[in-house]
Amino acid sequence: MTDPSTNMRLKLPITCFILQIILIILFGVLVQYDEDTDAKKHHHGNHSEAKTDMENDFYYRYPSFQDVHVMIFVGFGFLMTFLQRYGFSSVGFNFLIAAFSLQWATLMQGFFHGMHEGKIHIGVESMINADFCTGSVLISFGAVLGKTSPVQLLFMAVFEVTLFAVNEYILLSLLGTRDAGGSMTIHTFGAYFGLMVTRILYRPNLDKSKHKNCSVYHSDLFAMIGTLYLWMFWPSFNSAVTEHGDPQHRTAMNTYYSLAACTLSTYAMSSLTAHDGKLDMVHIQNAALAGGVAAGTAGEMMLTPVGSMIVGFLAGIISVLGFKYLTPILESKLKIQDTCGIHNLHGMPGVLGAIVGAVTASLASKEVYGEGLEKVFPGVASGNRTASYQGGVQAISLAVTLGIALIGGLLVGFILKMPIFGAPRDNACFEDSLYWEVPGEEESHEDQMTAVKTEESDTLNS
Amino acid sequence: MTDPSTNMRLKLPITCFILQIILIILFGVLVQYDEDTDAKKHHHGNHSEAKTDMENDFYYRYPSFQDVHVMIFVGFGFLMTFLQRYGFSSVGFNFLIAAFSLQWATLMQGFFHGMHEGKIHIGVESMINADFCTGSVLISFGAVLGKTSPVQLLFMAVFEVTLFAVNEYILLSLLGTRDAGGSMTIHTFGAYFGLMVTRILYRPNLDKSKHKNCSVYHSDLFAMIGTLYLWMFWPSFNSAVTEHGDPQHRTAMNTYYSLAACTLSTYAMSSLTAHDGKLDMVHIQNAALAGGVAAGTAGEMMLTPVGSMIVGFLAGIISVLGFKYLTPILESKLKIQDTCGIHNLHGMPGVLGAIVGAVTASLASKEVYGEGLEKVFPGVASGNRTASYQGGVQAISLAVTLGIALIGGLLVGFILKMPIFGAPRDNACFEDSLYWEVPGEEESHEDQMTAVKTEESDTLNS
Amino acid sequence: MTDPSTNMRLKLPITCFILQIILIILFGVLVQYDEDTDAKKHHHGNHSEAKTDMENDFYYRYPSFQDVHVMIFVGFGFLMTFLQRYGFSSVGFNFLIAAFSLQWATLMQGFFHGMHEGKIHIGVESMINADFCTGSVLISFGAVLGKTSPVQLLFMAVFEVTLFAVNEYILLSLLGTRDAGGSMTIHTFGAYFGLMVTRILYRPNLDKSKHKNCSVYHSDLFAMIGTLYLWMFWPSFNSAVTEHGDPQHRTAMNTYYSLAACTLSTYAMSSLTAHDGKLDMVHIQNAALAGGVAAGTAGEMMLTPVGSMIVGFLAGIISVLGFKYLTPILESKLKIQDTCGIHNLHGMPGVLGAIVGAVTASLASKEVYGEGLEKVFPGVASGNRTASYQGGVQAISLAVTLGIALIGGLLVGFILKMPIFGAPRDNACFEDSLYWEVPGEEESHEDQMTAVKTEESDTLNS
Repeated sequence: MTDPSTNMRLKLPITCFILQIILIILFGVLVQYDEDTDAKKHHHGNHSEAKTDMENDFYYRYPSFQDVHVMIFVGFGFLMTFLQRYGFSSVGFNFLIAAFSLQWATLMQGFFHGMHEGKIHIGVESMINADFCTGSVLISFGAVLGKTSPVQLLFMAVFEVTLFAVNEYILLSLLGTRDAGGSMTIHTFGAYFGLMVTRILYRPNLDKSKHKNCSVYHSDLFAMIGTLYLWMFWPSFNSAVTEHGDPQHRTAMNTYYSLAACTLSTYAMSSLTAHDGKLDMVHIQNAALAGGVAAGTAGEMMLTPVGSMIVGFLAGIISVLGFKYLTPILESKLKIQDTCGIHNLHGMPGVLGAIVGAVTASLASKEVYGEGLEKVFPGVASGNRTASYQGGVQAISLAVTLGIALIGGLLVGFILKMPIFGAPRDNACFEDSLYWEVPGEEESHEDQMTAVKTEESDTLNS
Repeated sequence: MTDPSTNMRLKLPITCFILQIILIILFGVLVQYDEDTDAKKHHHGNHSEAKTDMENDFYYRYPSFQDVHVMIFVGFGFLMTFLQRYGFSSVGFNFLIAAFSLQWATLMQGFFHGMHEGKIHIGVESMINADFCTGSVLISFGAVLGKTSPVQLLFMAVFEVTLFAVNEYILLSLLGTRDAGGSMTIHTFGAYFGLMVTRILYRPNLDKSKHKNCSVYHSDLFAMIGTLYLWMFWPSFNSAVTEHGDPQHRTAMNTYYSLAACTLSTYAMSSLTAHDGKLDMVHIQNAALAGGVAAGTAGEMMLTPVGSMIVGFLAGIISVLGFKYLTPILESKLKIQDTCGIHNLHGMPGVLGAIVGAVTASLASKEVYGEGLEKVFPGVASGNRTASYQGGVQAISLAVTLGIALIGGLLVGFILKMPIFGAPRDNACFEDSLYWEVPGEEESHEDQMTAVKTEESDTLNS
Repeated sequence: MTDPSTNMRLKLPITCFILQIILIILFGVLVQYDEDTDAKKHHHGNHSEAKTDMENDFYYRYPSFQDVHVMIFVGFGFLMTFLQRYGFSSVGFNFLIAAFSLQWATLMQGFFHGMHEGKIHIGVESMINADFCTGSVLISFGAVLGKTSPVQLLFMAVFEVTLFAVNEYILLSLLGTRDAGGSMTIHTFGAYFGLMVTRILYRPNLDKSKHKNCSVYHSDLFAMIGTLYLWMFWPSFNSAVTEHGDPQHRTAMNTYYSLAACTLSTYAMSSLTAHDGKLDMVHIQNAALAGGVAAGTAGEMMLTPVGSMIVGFLAGIISVLGFKYLTPILESKLKIQDTCGIHNLHGMPGVLGAIVGAVTASLASKEVYGEGLEKVFPGVASGNRTASYQGGVQAISLAVTLGIALIGGLLVGFILKMPIFGAPRDNACFEDSLYWEVPGEEESHEDQMTAVKTEESDTLNS
């Protein structure tokens, strides 16, 4: 299937090369190893006493980093393979924009909160943060899945990463917000940004591609690979950049129980909302993850195991209800065509997570946290702010995030609407063959056997 | 495919909601963070000297936990996708009952051996133990795969987790048995419990679904994803809850060599027992894992690398012979319909592992273990029991496990036989569409291309 | 499909059993736990002061080991499932020869550089090294994929592991070469060895199997599972056996950025070299990994993030150009039939990595590395050799590796050419059914539904 308007022969190579060369130049000028990755600094840094090898941040965070990395590339990538003829693009564009975004995010995040004497210092924590920012872009990708060219996606990533870093800077550095697992910075931001982009890119005639906007049996199984890796590693995601020790431990455990409870409420709601009680793969693939999103802010706090379970339980219910009743309304009334239902998986659960975080923060006290208060709420521990003030900051942060995401998505949507990017036509959405060499269908096994046997008799006869 | 008797519209939601609400209430009343997850306790616990962050148990065990977690959700889940039309249920019910079981196991195991002043204290070690208990339920699931409703499975999990915790308590707490990787507590227990359940649920007319009780090409590849993750991460499984330091290191290595040797004997036996020397995917998917099961008890002991290899080598042989010759006999003579052949992967290798563990324990000595004896056999190290006494205890533990598993499976089988649970009819087993919305078949690519082209010409003509 | 010449009924079992029994005997005679795995030594070794549990090498390296392990079994295994009818063999033979090779490599590597008083001491580092050596065999497997019997592959592994250990010994122990991620020892060696083997095994009539030497839609998605796991975990691969602390941290980060840049140049080149701008899955699956290969030697050095990105960027370009223009020439002119294009993924990027390593080493200085020089270039730090001498040694090591690989591949190729190994005939290559029981095709869902309904009405009528 070839269409001159979607031919990427020049557009994609030029975009990739220019972006990568810019990245290389900026890295050359700006980026340096941090204390724990530099051969010289690690041994003779400005420490009063030297770190042992085991105290290198690598050993605290690298296993979590690898889990997050799997979520970004396999988790998000395969989750989106549910479409019958968009598997190459789901995994492949996910791969491309993630590889770009993690480099760009290193610069943008470093620029806003990693500068030391004019240089960006990087190590395993910045790698995790870059992957986090990438995750936000991939969430937005879910909203426009099947309706965008790879060049459009790269440009979306350029802008979204930048805005992500701005929002993150405002929250974490200016406001002192706590959001270790990114209910606000990652999920709410990525979701509402993506929803606004897809709103601006609204296609009134998308039903021409309707027959391809659905799954087949094996594509749903591939998607479950994505779901399960996201589900299993979400405890690592939420705990990856918390403080060392008990906060990392506690966050992982809170997320574990939130997800487990969410899974049960998802199955219950999926069956309850189907007219014949049958489970819907869309719900299982997506809503069962909402418990991880919703524990993203409060996970590092003393949410308690039971608190985590209640949060996850509610997140699963909200998410399935969203898929069942809200998504059709968003499409018909608000003209928001949300391919993967990111509003249900990242949007609403992200907002829920932000609210839970604000409430939990406002209840923080020395009685509950003891000396550990310093690690979770340094401002409260030092007496600079009260817990209820911190709760208010958390709530304001949600509003800020929503605002930047929606306005950002609006602007970026209009940029992406320009015809030069080679978006697919309405009748060719959700189709790999526009941007990929697609192999032929599998011959039936019997045909192959016949072919071989024919050749064999040929050989024998000759 | 709709059948009123299997409609889950009310049964599944009600079961899930009630179970989850009970869990939430019990967690609220009983469960607390342990020393390493609580912000307050970690910093001002009842230590004479404070732990450093790196000494938090999280850093010793969390990477192993994540590997175990992958085995439970992806390993077991995908291993069972080998059936041509049961992939949604294999992965999906595995997901559901695992998410339930890990919560319920936290309570049951905590009740029996994690209580502190009336509260259950939880952290990464309890999370691993909960996953272990879940693994046992999933083993039993393998025996009844394709023949049970999700509600039946949830009820099976309720009872099996409870009995698992009782058996584990008797072994580990009362008898002082060593079984870090669970040859007895997890594999033998799960296998014989499941075999007894499937015996009670015997279906004389199961051959009506025979044409679906087999694999197709791609379903076998999906199953290999499960196999490989189980195989690769089994060293983490067996070492996840051993003592810190050399026992964890040694257990992982012993299991690594046991599995490698097992793989070679599995391939050899698979080819040898086929009339034309062709390898059978069922053997590769399952028997190659028997080396992990068989190293579950003795793995932490000074089994030596060569000892591990011999154990794995034997386990592979036994397992393939079981698939080839014993499974048909179990079905025809003993009326045990064991869908996944858990007797060959978990049953016999589990018993082998228990025996190897008993023998290895009885040979333990201060000469071999030095000061390390304390970590593996504290009773022997303290002089409270001799090594041969420990060996006897290990042997008795196998008998206790078999007894509780068989009697428990008998009782639970009868409970699950009640018609209210919505089990499939004999001619509708091994079929996803009973409990899942199943998408249509993939259109052939050529048809799609034609469709697109037709639309394209329509567009051009209009 | 049955062919007496390829019947493995006796050949495969005998080969597996004999090899495994030899391994067991040699392990029994030669192999012992090392200090960190032995219960006695860990606690009362010949340390002046005892190690804490956390200083056990297990906690420094086991997470990396597990990532490498996934690359070997899932990464390599699934990467090769791209062929439409060779998925069982790709994953299954990969599994078999890896399980053998890791045991044999333990002995060979231990013999050359792990002997202590006549015994081979093993622990997590030797496990990683054994997996590395296995990786080299699997690279060679990629060249002959589809054209060899499992017995041939096992014999190839026997010889290749041995030669790998010899080459590794010459480089690392005799010459003092630095090659932590194995650009030379693993990738260059495995690639040129495999290319020479496939050259000797040249099949002039391979086009008889041409129709099977290609992918189908879902086989390409399975292959992407392999690609992504290799890509994600390559930072762990390159850093797995570097010194503790900053070198491990730095290597992982350098590889991360090399891979990211490589991915963008791969996408650019894939689109640029296609006549209609469409991306080619072969490039994405393979060339995007070249950045990991090319960072294998210099990754642990102070390559800087920008240096890593430049290396990855070039590696991606070279690799796609190789697939597009060099592979056809190699086949037509040099009679090298390289099924997976290992020359493009491992060969040329490996050589590039070796050269980059030599240059980077020759620029090493106390100013840049500080006290950390000791960990990366102990010879230079101690003043025994200059940095430029080290650079020269690195360059010579490349030549040595190429020499041993090519001569070794030549000899082993001739051995494997003997007809007794049961290689497939020219018209039956790339076909699972020669060595595997292959299940029938999936019935269409509609047929199944009809079948079920028919049976249902039968039941109702009866």
